[in-house]
Amino acid sequence: MLETLIHNGVIVTVDDAFSVLPRGALAIRDGGIVNVWMPAAGETLPQARETIDAGGALVMPGLVNAHTHLPMSLFRGMADDLALHQWLQERILPAEQAHITPKSVALGAELSCAEMVLGGVTTCCDGYFLVDHFAGAVARVGMRAILGQGVIDFPAPGVPDPTLNVTAAREVVGRWQSGTPLVQPAIFCHAPYTCSAATLQAGKAAADELGLLFQIHVAETRQEREDWMGRHGQSPIAYLDGLGVLDGRTLLVHAVWADAADVAIVARTGARVVHCPQSNMKLAGGVAPVPDYLAAGVTVALGTDGCASNNDLSMWGEMDSAAKLHKVHRGDPTVMDAATVVGMATVQGARALGLDHLIGSLTPGKRADLIVLKTAQPHLTPLYHPASHLVYAARAADVNHVMVDGRWIVRDQRLLTIDLDDLMDRANRFARKIAVSAPT
Amino acid sequence: MLETLIHNGVIVTVDDAFSVLPRGALAIRDGGIVNVWMPAAGETLPQARETIDAGGALVMPGLVNAHTHLPMSLFRGMADDLALHQWLQERILPAEQAHITPKSVALGAELSCAEMVLGGVTTCCDGYFLVDHFAGAVARVGMRAILGQGVIDFPAPGVPDPTLNVTAAREVVGRWQSGTPLVQPAIFCHAPYTCSAATLQAGKAAADELGLLFQIHVAETRQEREDWMGRHGQSPIAYLDGLGVLDGRTLLVHAVWADAADVAIVARTGARVVHCPQSNMKLAGGVAPVPDYLAAGVTVALGTDGCASNNDLSMWGEMDSAAKLHKVHRGDPTVMDAATVVGMATVQGARALGLDHLIGSLTPGKRADLIVLKTAQPHLTPLYHPASHLVYAARAADVNHVMVDGRWIVRDQRLLTIDLDDLMDRANRFARKIAVSAPT
Repeated sequence: MLETLIHNGVIVTVDDAFSVLPRGALAIRDGGIVNVWMPAAGETLPQARETIDAGGALVMPGLVNAHTHLPMSLFRGMADDLALHQWLQERILPAEQAHITPKSVALGAELSCAEMVLGGVTTCCDGYFLVDHFAGAVARVGMRAILGQGVIDFPAPGVPDPTLNVTAAREVVGRWQSGTPLVQPAIFCHAPYTCSAATLQAGKAAADELGLLFQIHVAETRQEREDWMGRHGQSPIAYLDGLGVLDGRTLLVHAVWADAADVAIVARTGARVVHCPQSNMKLAGGVAPVPDYLAAGVTVALGTDGCASNNDLSMWGEMDSAAKLHKVHRGDPTVMDAATVVGMATVQGARALGLDHLIGSLTPGKRADLIVLKTAQPHLTPLYHPASHLVYAARAADVNHVMVDGRWIVRDQRLLTIDLDDLMDRANRFARKIAVSAPT
Repeated sequence: MLETLIHNGVIVTVDDAFSVLPRGALAIRDGGIVNVWMPAAGETLPQARETIDAGGALVMPGLVNAHTHLPMSLFRGMADDLALHQWLQERILPAEQAHITPKSVALGAELSCAEMVLGGVTTCCDGYFLVDHFAGAVARVGMRAILGQGVIDFPAPGVPDPTLNVTAAREVVGRWQSGTPLVQPAIFCHAPYTCSAATLQAGKAAADELGLLFQIHVAETRQEREDWMGRHGQSPIAYLDGLGVLDGRTLLVHAVWADAADVAIVARTGARVVHCPQSNMKLAGGVAPVPDYLAAGVTVALGTDGCASNNDLSMWGEMDSAAKLHKVHRGDPTVMDAATVVGMATVQGARALGLDHLIGSLTPGKRADLIVLKTAQPHLTPLYHPASHLVYAARAADVNHVMVDGRWIVRDQRLLTIDLDDLMDRANRFARKIAVSAPT
């Protein structure tokens, strides 16, 4: 017997043809999607332990947030509208040094995951330190995640001796116990300007040996590119290519300051890009050449970046901004159409993380990671084209139900897995300590 | 006795000093604000017919949406991601010609107003045709509004003979019956390129005689500016100045393609600007020089534009985009800080519409147009700086209560004034007719 049957939904499959089934049905067994179809009029629907009439609501794959820093929700809105060096050096890094502990990373990660799943994100890819200390928190909330252990040539939380940074990352992977296959480790080398060539190559070698994703921030700011051209005579992306660390298991985060030669390198190596439009806008990093990446066949995912820079974890805001930013930047309202952007937030995100065999579209054989939106609301009325609404009108609060791996973790906008009020109380108490110690 | 007392709120007054009262109280009598203060510990609060413990929630002035086209919510998401001329000429104008009637404008306006008040917009400024036919619908929803009767040198809904366009606008004002002083008329000349010099001057003269606001779209696209420079040897804004139609009762909508001389003209004449960042982004119009306007002392409001171009009426999205767009465009993360943007969405909006003696800040003597946000949510936790959350994290669905002129029109996210389900049913039925007749 089926576990769950959802019918009478507008099913946005995000399959290769971007098929939309106007009164579709979706069948789930053993946590996986076994059928997605348009029942004929009068067709008897199969029996299931749970049958849900979606009542015309939109049903779509869960969103994939391909880049974030989970614990940093504790610093949400602590420092805004500052020059980048001031924001980072004077506010964020001191706050991290003073307040990031094995306990606080778990608190921040739990808060971030709660926000994400309530907003329809079913998978995230994180980069931070002490990731083994918050893998359990992520698992408790119930989402799918890849947690990249940070590698940097400076003392870092949990890694006081930077000469042991890659060793520490291997150890994190070695003792990995998230309690679920949904939450897996990765290696996250911070950036070319904070990791030596040897560190980058050792980090990538570790990732390859362990069969893990390798993530890196690159070419986020004009300054970074110009410094690199001055010191090395090549772009940051060309430099990474020269080190041999770019391939289909490499995730390039931001990749804003990339010229045509850089785009060609990314396409040739098969590296994937994570576009974080709102973070790039707010920190004034720049506008990534996303239409060029897409034209070159590069897989481009979307990410929120961490809450210290954005300041939320809503993929709806990222979709909206991704669609609009490139239009105004290129002076062309036809670039980044709605279906393309929905794809970036779902199946392209899954592909970027190496998870597209499991998730990213509502197609038989994939795991049941899906969301149901509450569409009977004025701002989603009327509905002509689902993709349009998903990008230009829907928001995190429109997510009504969320399923990960066949398990409901949000129903009727209520998080089923953890005690949300207690979590927010703990986050508020933590923040009061920071607020007291922060510069005014 | 007081009508309403709200206490224990984080009151974001948006007064001249941007004062925030962390555990503030606000007293309302006869629909007006009589006191806003920080009660001392143990202070006995005054008696009121209704006392509300805000429980630490944010309380702020209702948002002012300074530019929209209310009936166009019926076309929400009907046509996206198209070149401007194709979008307008092939999709929007034919839909308007076929489906805009005295009845449908009331339906669309009611839908738009429902969306807006649920999202914390208490005042809007509209520009459309047949405005007297939807003034009653706006009044029924309960919001404050200025409805600009369209003037254009082409046949238009309700004005088949364009030689009578200004006459028709005067007649609309003459027979004005919205049933409430909250909903007032204005004159809306569509644009310099659709109204002759004589029309513009006659429209402005009518507005002045009748004591009304005069609105106009101007300098929205690069093409418009270049055409104007080619034909008239001057910018659209300089041209309007030459016609004598710019003063403190003139609202310039978009004003994107403005150079330093144009900015100086706007500042000198006292004309106000409405910035619609998301519409300008989505239609690839361009990036208005908002930081320059502000530096020159120009009053700049925010607007959503109509739902055919944006596609929602959320001022939260506009605040977020306004703050971020100019940062990335200028390469400077310090421009358009959060408090400035909150001001644009409230008190500057009120000033732009000539309503700042009545609304726009929570200060004694003004009318009680205010909103209370539901802040105990993960994406608003923790809270360090209210302005930051309002711009970078809060969304329309966070609005819990809405008061206009001392009257609650939304409580606990429920619209009290109209039957929302019936309204959405009517909008959906209307849309099915359009969908059937639309080109595929």
